[in-house]
Amino acid sequence: MKLASIDNGSPDGQLVVISKDTSQMCRVHGSAGTMAACLADWQSVLPVLQDISSALNNGTCEQAEPVAGARFLAPLPRTYQWLDGSLFMNHGHLMQKAFNLDPIEDADKYPLIYQGAGDAFTGCNDTIALYNPAHGVDFEGEFGVLTTDVPVGATPDEAMQAIKLVVQLNDISYRGLAPREMKTGFGFVQAKGETAFAPFAVTPDEFGDSWADGRIHLTLNITRNGEWFGSPSGSEMHFGFHELIAHAATTRPIKAGTVFGSGTVSNAKPEAGQACIAELRAKELIIQGKPQTPFLSDGETVHMVCRDKQDQPLFGEINQTVKGG
Amino acid sequence: MKLASIDNGSPDGQLVVISKDTSQMCRVHGSAGTMAACLADWQSVLPVLQDISSALNNGTCEQAEPVAGARFLAPLPRTYQWLDGSLFMNHGHLMQKAFNLDPIEDADKYPLIYQGAGDAFTGCNDTIALYNPAHGVDFEGEFGVLTTDVPVGATPDEAMQAIKLVVQLNDISYRGLAPREMKTGFGFVQAKGETAFAPFAVTPDEFGDSWADGRIHLTLNITRNGEWFGSPSGSEMHFGFHELIAHAATTRPIKAGTVFGSGTVSNAKPEAGQACIAELRAKELIIQGKPQTPFLSDGETVHMVCRDKQDQPLFGEINQTVKGG
Repeated sequence: MKLASIDNGSPDGQLVVISKDTSQMCRVHGSAGTMAACLADWQSVLPVLQDISSALNNGTCEQAEPVAGARFLAPLPRTYQWLDGSLFMNHGHLMQKAFNLDPIEDADKYPLIYQGAGDAFTGCNDTIALYNPAHGVDFEGEFGVLTTDVPVGATPDEAMQAIKLVVQLNDISYRGLAPREMKTGFGFVQAKGETAFAPFAVTPDEFGDSWADGRIHLTLNITRNGEWFGSPSGSEMHFGFHELIAHAATTRPIKAGTVFGSGTVSNAKPEAGQACIAELRAKELIIQGKPQTPFLSDGETVHMVCRDKQDQPLFGEINQTVKGG
Repeated sequence: MKLASIDNGSPDGQLVVISKDTSQMCRVHGSAGTMAACLADWQSVLPVLQDISSALNNGTCEQAEPVAGARFLAPLPRTYQWLDGSLFMNHGHLMQKAFNLDPIEDADKYPLIYQGAGDAFTGCNDTIALYNPAHGVDFEGEFGVLTTDVPVGATPDEAMQAIKLVVQLNDISYRGLAPREMKTGFGFVQAKGETAFAPFAVTPDEFGDSWADGRIHLTLNITRNGEWFGSPSGSEMHFGFHELIAHAATTRPIKAGTVFGSGTVSNAKPEAGQACIAELRAKELIIQGKPQTPFLSDGETVHMVCRDKQDQPLFGEINQTVKGG
């Protein structure tokens, strides 16, 4: 099942169920009319959503509307907690090698994770704000999950049960501001922008064997200005999402509606390309002695899509234009 | 004017206006019935709140109820963004000296700040959860502010206009988990627990000259198990809240309902004591060669209060008991 939020003028949007072929949608009415409400009361709401989904798919949904023309927000337009991992070891290794950094201690034992701002996620076609070109604006193609409540001290297996929806996202990062913030040890505040999401949040059962061990075993395809930039696979995540969630739940309960991110998808084999500019620049620095590829500037476009085995976009598509500067 | 949220079974609580003598309160009805809604629409709601406040104070409020017996939540029980500073340089200096750390570069030029979890603030009398004594559970007495919208690129003066309410809080910290997380550069996730708030959020005009330069010029009085622990003043904040907010707004707009914290209140003069255990342990380490004072354990109590010049508790009182372990 695919869920999405369409713009109805309110910050949380209107929850809709999307048909399997993504041509039709149906609004969810009443108290479960937002994604946040739906995650907070998942067990009760799920049968309602499934009924709508079945009706949409067999053509009996009387309130069906065409998807074409709808303005999609992020599936969950804002949340009280957004925790983003950095779970692809290849990304960290490249950064350390390029910038001659000490390896992060125990990065293979404890998932790297930062607390992000969940107050204003953006939609799949929203512009990427370029407030200042000196900030080094970059994209980061990621997978993510939305959870229900997770009790403190949950095991990874228990955490797995709380993963209700999988999402695809673009974590906007200001590379010029990150090194100073990392050196403080306090993490990213200025260095992270408005995170954009592909339109559809998808239940794990839709993935078949492409969802296993808390990982998405599919490639994320990135183009920049229409040219191929990378197609790394989610398989190389060093920790599964369930392990990331259990890590965060060590000292506090996780509330329904929390979003967890994978970090930029990154593979060891060079032909996979990359899902962020910083990683390509690191490779250039290592091989050619200096970075060649510039960060984003006004008017550039970024496209991200993850296709299933039938070549259909699983989460819809992210298609953003950079504006400003 | 003082505002608070009382428990009505919902996560956001019921907004109430508190009388000047804090004996009476009045529920705010309709769409402004939560603190979040009130901050999102401050200009329209403010006159309504002021009318209620006047009626409460001159004894003409027909819907007045006694404050005694009400269960207070945090004034804003949850928020989409919680940004906590570390703005008292003395705290950083002591930590660096005690643990032989390199000074944080440019800490006097850029405010130190981390992104916290705003999903579950706790009330003034809620227990401090001790999940694992090895985590080194500590309190941090702080001041904070609640804001309305702040546009990206706002100056400190513009940011000052967005400060609508001042709060007092206890930022629960797990000292045993912080060093590993700081070393990653990604900031605190496991190392921060559930932040507790004194019951009343107070408009800046209530402070007279005790609110100036974006700082609270009053002492925060801390006792542990009934014994004096510290009474440092908010005056020594190296940056004002308006500067902290402008720093955060450099690369993204700040949404109404964002909470900013001062970091643990800390003064250079030893007789001020301290607002967290870690700082006392650092002093002991410097002077006596090793820390003497243990972190919190089951059954201990922490009390925090800030009194105005008439010796009245400005924000009410934080009075928490540690439970678990």
